[in-house]
Amino acid sequence: MSMNFDVLATDGAARRGRIETAHGVIDTPAFMPVGTAATVKCMRPGSVAETGAQIILGNTYHLTLRPGADRIEKLGGLHRFMNWPGPILTDSGGFQVMSLAKLRKITEDGVTFQSHIDGSRHVLSPEISIQIQHKLDADITMAFDECTPYPASHDDAAASMRMSMRWAKRSKAAFTEREGYGLFGIVQGSTYEDLRGESVQALSEIGFDGYAIGGLAVGEGQTEMFSVLDYTAPALPVDRPRYLMGVGKPDDIVGAVQRGVDMFDCVLPTRSGRTAQAFTRFGQLNLKNARHAEDDRPIDPECTCPACGEHTRAYLHHLFKASEVLGLMLLTWHNLHYYQELTAGLRVAIEAGELDAFVNAFERQRAEGDPFGG
Amino acid sequence: MSMNFDVLATDGAARRGRIETAHGVIDTPAFMPVGTAATVKCMRPGSVAETGAQIILGNTYHLTLRPGADRIEKLGGLHRFMNWPGPILTDSGGFQVMSLAKLRKITEDGVTFQSHIDGSRHVLSPEISIQIQHKLDADITMAFDECTPYPASHDDAAASMRMSMRWAKRSKAAFTEREGYGLFGIVQGSTYEDLRGESVQALSEIGFDGYAIGGLAVGEGQTEMFSVLDYTAPALPVDRPRYLMGVGKPDDIVGAVQRGVDMFDCVLPTRSGRTAQAFTRFGQLNLKNARHAEDDRPIDPECTCPACGEHTRAYLHHLFKASEVLGLMLLTWHNLHYYQELTAGLRVAIEAGELDAFVNAFERQRAEGDPFGG
Repeated sequence: MSMNFDVLATDGAARRGRIETAHGVIDTPAFMPVGTAATVKCMRPGSVAETGAQIILGNTYHLTLRPGADRIEKLGGLHRFMNWPGPILTDSGGFQVMSLAKLRKITEDGVTFQSHIDGSRHVLSPEISIQIQHKLDADITMAFDECTPYPASHDDAAASMRMSMRWAKRSKAAFTEREGYGLFGIVQGSTYEDLRGESVQALSEIGFDGYAIGGLAVGEGQTEMFSVLDYTAPALPVDRPRYLMGVGKPDDIVGAVQRGVDMFDCVLPTRSGRTAQAFTRFGQLNLKNARHAEDDRPIDPECTCPACGEHTRAYLHHLFKASEVLGLMLLTWHNLHYYQELTAGLRVAIEAGELDAFVNAFERQRAEGDPFGG
Repeated sequence: MSMNFDVLATDGAARRGRIETAHGVIDTPAFMPVGTAATVKCMRPGSVAETGAQIILGNTYHLTLRPGADRIEKLGGLHRFMNWPGPILTDSGGFQVMSLAKLRKITEDGVTFQSHIDGSRHVLSPEISIQIQHKLDADITMAFDECTPYPASHDDAAASMRMSMRWAKRSKAAFTEREGYGLFGIVQGSTYEDLRGESVQALSEIGFDGYAIGGLAVGEGQTEMFSVLDYTAPALPVDRPRYLMGVGKPDDIVGAVQRGVDMFDCVLPTRSGRTAQAFTRFGQLNLKNARHAEDDRPIDPECTCPACGEHTRAYLHHLFKASEVLGLMLLTWHNLHYYQELTAGLRVAIEAGELDAFVNAFERQRAEGDPFGG
């Protein structure tokens, strides 16, 4: 394998690991902030690193349309273009073509679609997606797949998953192995245990540097998602990182780590930060709520992010009421900081063999709710 | 006087001074970033300080409407509310009531108006404005005045100015003197030398901690503005700071400093930063221009702001094309940094008695234009 991964400790099914990439180390369990258009929205890259993030995600679909993979390659790759020197994972573009592009047409060969920005025509296939991700200089490249819509009949889920497995094989063939660079396969199969098993088997035979679990967090709910993880994660190779795509809420992440997942990405902390939603140890707060208007206390007095260290709930409330950009900046930072603190806490707990105690404390604090009332 | 001001050096009419306020020192010539709604848009307060700014401006009109002066007072004043520990100057609200509010009605007593936000009814008068600025805890309070519209007939300009002088007297009477806090009067009189002279005389007799020159940068053009400064500035008390309100472009500031002005405020660096306009030693750049799309160089290789130190023109171009907030953040920072570098350079030049050489170099670089072409 061209990308080293070590499991440093385990606690039950949970794993504390370390991935070594061309652009640095990733300690797992890891949360990857989403940097869709070559920017984690409302954050300077140095600030993203300050939250503790070691790897960010870039979106092939968005970057292909603007500014274009050739331009990014010409400018030295995505790390240099956006001044993020650490590891980057790029998605394959498949998921967003399906959900964002217009007039998409899926065939065995790949997908033709129109840009949501200017209507221009584009093609994505396993070969093209891998080539684009190569141009972007992604440390971790994702195989091109179809994210099976939810719900799907067993027949539809099987057909979709099997096409994704053929695409996975083509993705592997198109990928250029380099030291510190890796290619991840993506398990599909909807909520059907036999199909997930078949998918894991197919990917394991091809052989990848890591295995993602796709097609979840698409409306199936946490119970169903955990159920899929319960039978999918144990079937995956133990010596490769496992990445649950697009997940999720803090309790989704905690439950998935307990089930053996190592990596996560989600727009929730950043997107919520732009809609006045704060994630805390005590659950979620809406800073637009009038109860914060004269509250001279921080979101969380124990949080060390700038929003909590330098500003009050009253001020954040004002910024959101006045539609001020600083509100987006501060709350995005806070939420990313919280997600990084959460995964850091999970890593420490697994190392110490105290994951159960950590999860109990996590759930207890959330049950207690915001200590400042409301 | 309750606010100390020392002229440390002069070079021709230009002055290098220092104001001591309750919240710290202001080195003049000084540029004050505008923090309309208790935030310098797109900047954390610590970042504003990093640009070199020592004082920021707050807007009485905006803060009165949202979140309200009583609330800010209850939360410890504007410094604490927005976490800006340094000096703050607040305007009187008059200018913005005239330009932003709906259905305003001006009488000798003051102005009644409707909020542009929710249509609610409010009153501003000299007494109310001073009281609001007191609640905000402004280090420098501005007298309540009418910004005479431009152009104005001599009769209209005289009537408007004389009402502002009566309001200035009421402002002074309403102001509570405290150590380190000051009240500035505002010279009006449009572009009429006799009226400006009469206004200076009236204000000097009342006695203020500083003197602002109002009613300029309202469409009269730089030549006319400099002409007003040529006869107004020398008439002002030499031992008090002089503040040219709402000015301006870099060459406006340089010319005004040459004419003896000490303080400036303007939305230009912040507002331009949000519309892809960068101020540099070489003039102005539009980062949206296609010529920057693959330019791997910073806006200005000698600039030490994060936009120039960490990012390329190509990346900034991309951020603005993709409407990303990070573009606004970086270019606002760059522009504020440039304005602070400019005033810092003016201070050094005046101290050294080399203002002419400084101005020559300033004009030569601008004439040369962007060294990267275009």
